[in-house]
Amino acid sequence: MSALKNDTFLRALMRQPTEYTPTWLMRQAGRYLPEYCATRARAGSFLNLCKSPTLATEVTLQPLARYNLDAAILFSDILTVPDAMGLGLYFAEGEGPKFERPLREEWAIRNLQAPNPHDHLRYVIDAVAEIRRALDGSVPLIGFSGSPFTLSCYMIEGQGSDSYTEVKKMMYGRPDLMHHILEVTTRAVIDYLNAQIEAGAQAVMVFDSWGGMLSQAAYLEFSLPYMARIMAELTRERDGHVVPRIVFTKGGGLWLEKIAACGADAVGLDWTIDIGDARRRVEGKVALQGNMDPNILLTTPEAVAKEAEAVLTSYGHGTGHIFNLGHGISQFTPPENVSVLVETVREKSRAFHQAI
Amino acid sequence: MSALKNDTFLRALMRQPTEYTPTWLMRQAGRYLPEYCATRARAGSFLNLCKSPTLATEVTLQPLARYNLDAAILFSDILTVPDAMGLGLYFAEGEGPKFERPLREEWAIRNLQAPNPHDHLRYVIDAVAEIRRALDGSVPLIGFSGSPFTLSCYMIEGQGSDSYTEVKKMMYGRPDLMHHILEVTTRAVIDYLNAQIEAGAQAVMVFDSWGGMLSQAAYLEFSLPYMARIMAELTRERDGHVVPRIVFTKGGGLWLEKIAACGADAVGLDWTIDIGDARRRVEGKVALQGNMDPNILLTTPEAVAKEAEAVLTSYGHGTGHIFNLGHGISQFTPPENVSVLVETVREKSRAFHQAI
Repeated sequence: MSALKNDTFLRALMRQPTEYTPTWLMRQAGRYLPEYCATRARAGSFLNLCKSPTLATEVTLQPLARYNLDAAILFSDILTVPDAMGLGLYFAEGEGPKFERPLREEWAIRNLQAPNPHDHLRYVIDAVAEIRRALDGSVPLIGFSGSPFTLSCYMIEGQGSDSYTEVKKMMYGRPDLMHHILEVTTRAVIDYLNAQIEAGAQAVMVFDSWGGMLSQAAYLEFSLPYMARIMAELTRERDGHVVPRIVFTKGGGLWLEKIAACGADAVGLDWTIDIGDARRRVEGKVALQGNMDPNILLTTPEAVAKEAEAVLTSYGHGTGHIFNLGHGISQFTPPENVSVLVETVREKSRAFHQAI
Repeated sequence: MSALKNDTFLRALMRQPTEYTPTWLMRQAGRYLPEYCATRARAGSFLNLCKSPTLATEVTLQPLARYNLDAAILFSDILTVPDAMGLGLYFAEGEGPKFERPLREEWAIRNLQAPNPHDHLRYVIDAVAEIRRALDGSVPLIGFSGSPFTLSCYMIEGQGSDSYTEVKKMMYGRPDLMHHILEVTTRAVIDYLNAQIEAGAQAVMVFDSWGGMLSQAAYLEFSLPYMARIMAELTRERDGHVVPRIVFTKGGGLWLEKIAACGADAVGLDWTIDIGDARRRVEGKVALQGNMDPNILLTTPEAVAKEAEAVLTSYGHGTGHIFNLGHGISQFTPPENVSVLVETVREKSRAFHQAI
């Protein structure tokens, strides 16, 4: 493998000095880019795109060709894992992901097995290796997975939900079954992320998209401990380099101190928390990734630049900040606003990294 | 007017001693009750139900006939105010509320006027008076309004939204127009709530359903100051009794200390915050209302009782807690679970109110 030319992102994750604040954007390879839409059209479907290492590599690299980003993230979907568990992922046009066989019956839950990632998830592992080769050491590659709680939500509901009725029925009515699903899913995520690291992922991120829908007590019972177990079992070094881990619970700002103690090197923040307050609360124990409201990218270049500077200013001087949005980039984002964002952070952040 | 037979709710709001923790439930008159569905069917539509003082009175009283609740809340909709501003509220079957004329053009925004509540909102004021008579002093009546920010969101989007794209475009691109809408809406809410108080509402609540979608900076610019202005301009006493005010920003747990300083007597909490932590953070400055996850009502009576006790225990000993859900009750709630909830709180809370 080529030596890494730009390791700013990895250094910031480990709270080592950098010259500027590195940037990547959740869902940076996505529908706001016309070149992504063209590849997606050629693939025929979103799932075909995910399942083709060559096409996944192509779209992963597209935003890097346009913007001065400091990391690539594997193009994939968090629901590949439940799909590999046999739930039958499909995408009904305009409806979001669904499973043919949601997990509701006790016998099905008891039969659930963690998939061998080298078998049913081979296409993801191959994509990681192919992207890593294609990047040729330009920037690091981030691997990722959904959190056990978030994956379990989708598996039980069978689709996205506003109220997570079925999940909550199980959590409060049959917590033993919920914990069984979480145990198996945790095993699956550990194996999946370790296989991504083995194949070349230089950092990994766990997306807990739905943990923020829980009460604090439920979050501390059903989501955070499983992420902590993943952190404890991930491969720590690969080729002599530490592989940093990021966890992100959207809506988890109230529980920040607890999340920061789960064993991750960095914590993702949505846009509802002030990143300066967050920095004070984590007391230098972890790096912070975030946290501009993605919808600001739908407005004017002036507003984008102003808000990017506001996030940098709130974080303040020193390392440990990875600039990102507080949620995935909207499909309606004008690509030129992303350029303004990335260039603003690159230039304006230098002042925050000079020796005082 | 009859003397109030049960003022437990009002005393708890003012942090005066009570014998038990009072309870009411957001959306307690709603689709989970078969008698509500029957009245709604007779009305022909949800809007007809809101616009008939007699039918609104009927459904307001239905949950009180079933359950040992300590307050009634006016049956109405937060969008009556923008409707009275001429935006043309309608409900497409199965689609949620919409406006015929969303606020997008500068000329329309500049023409916006706060409605006289005795004119276009006469039906609400009449309903307050009729409900108050029908209650005959049994429990207090809560009046309510949407917050200026939440109402403005609906007015600009023209319907509910996940991303509030149009609102955010305006907030970040034309903050002057956003503030103008908020100013007019704030005036409208003050007049509306004061008219409800004049007609007999014994407490009022401001629902900031969407403020939690904002960044902290945006919340402190576009939502909280307008609620603070409402608090400052509401009628404080009526017939020699203080009229307590409750504010509730769903998803506002991160900003609790700031919300608690806005001039309200009580702050509503969603279920993501631990109510004991919240109590420590507000340092006795306000009462707290909440905060059980409403989806627990979809599970078993045992789980309902257990979680209700957990909320009481977390709040702990002493007054200043009004038991409620962290969000409106789900239409799929079995009515018998509500009975378990209300009885559990009534009985189990007594121990928390005995002199130590």
